[in-house]
Amino acid sequence: MYKLHSFCQSGNCYKVAVMLDVLGQPWEPVFIDFFHGQTRSAEYRETVNEQGEAPVLDDGGLRLTQSGVILTHLARKHGRFGGDGEAQQREVLRWLLYDNHKFTSYFATYRFMYSLADAAPNPVVMDFLRARFEAAFGIVDKHLQQSAFMVGDAPTIADFSMCGYLFYPVEETGYDVRAKHPAIGKWLASIEQLPGWRGPYECLPGERMEPRRRG
Amino acid sequence: MYKLHSFCQSGNCYKVAVMLDVLGQPWEPVFIDFFHGQTRSAEYRETVNEQGEAPVLDDGGLRLTQSGVILTHLARKHGRFGGDGEAQQREVLRWLLYDNHKFTSYFATYRFMYSLADAAPNPVVMDFLRARFEAAFGIVDKHLQQSAFMVGDAPTIADFSMCGYLFYPVEETGYDVRAKHPAIGKWLASIEQLPGWRGPYECLPGERMEPRRRG
Repeated sequence: MYKLHSFCQSGNCYKVAVMLDVLGQPWEPVFIDFFHGQTRSAEYRETVNEQGEAPVLDDGGLRLTQSGVILTHLARKHGRFGGDGEAQQREVLRWLLYDNHKFTSYFATYRFMYSLADAAPNPVVMDFLRARFEAAFGIVDKHLQQSAFMVGDAPTIADFSMCGYLFYPVEETGYDVRAKHPAIGKWLASIEQLPGWRGPYECLPGERMEPRRRG
Repeated sequence: MYKLHSFCQSGNCYKVAVMLDVLGQPWEPVFIDFFHGQTRSAEYRETVNEQGEAPVLDDGGLRLTQSGVILTHLARKHGRFGGDGEAQQREVLRWLLYDNHKFTSYFATYRFMYSLADAAPNPVVMDFLRARFEAAFGIVDKHLQQSAFMVGDAPTIADFSMCGYLFYPVEETGYDVRAKHPAIGKWLASIEQLPGWRGPYECLPGERMEPRRRG
């Protein structure tokens, strides 16, 4: 059985969890204690992931890191959600990269600073991040006005990657993605309807925190 | 012949240029006028790249965007630099994603704000970006203390991607990567010695700008 080393506040972990659930693959959560520094410890970096990140997937003897690598591995292994043919596979990779560069990255950092970090955020940094994730959200919303999913008419790992941080409650960011970007909202509703779908706090391990609302 | 739509200040364009040069593939540069808004124009986003980014590679009738997609395409097509076997290919993808998420992204933005943007940067944002790219540089430097290239003993597209912004002059960022991270410095020296290698201002189109040094 797959073991997903993860914690419930991590949308990067959720990207993998949601795929395993929609694949109908049973998986066992293994808690990573991010908020007490586990991913920043020398031991974690030396023995688990030198990049110091979650998630980590154990697939038998194979240990994988980076959500995009794990999603690609699962798509190939199970023959689902990788895109049909070379042209679609290139599109899937194109959006995976865009997600890591501009779509997830700025929004995830904004959320962390808004409601999860110990230190209060600097409003100048928050404005910087917000302008950037709003630009990315605008580009993706426009794309989804023409297309039911990110690549064609069926879900792929590009969708699982990009939705990772968008199912968390609005109060964790103060930013109502669905209200501001209706095509993204419609797309999230389609993902929620996939058989097996669960939200991040329904499937990932660890204790839910009270958002600090300081953005 | 390949046509690479690009401009000389873009390390993302350079990632592709350096690979084509080291492959020994002739290519024709097509200038993108980024600094006069070409990538932000409605026409560019509707007809060239909805993500509003450079580079764009024309390979016969195929038009590709996202440097990581282009590098992957070229590696498969020419049977070089993609990594040997599945395990190496996963490592290559892992570092391509890390590059987009944390290694190139923060440093490229820092450089843009430091010496290329019209508006003077806010020092709080610069400190935020610097802390993040320094953390990523530390992780990569540690990795390169154990390994001649990012994946194994020979160059791959992970190297071409990650070196993209590191061959620009120090005065464009005020940050001497080679001095601060000696293993990265040694690795860059190895890349410079690959047959066909040229620097970004030697191969990409457009006019070089005087850095503004405002970080």
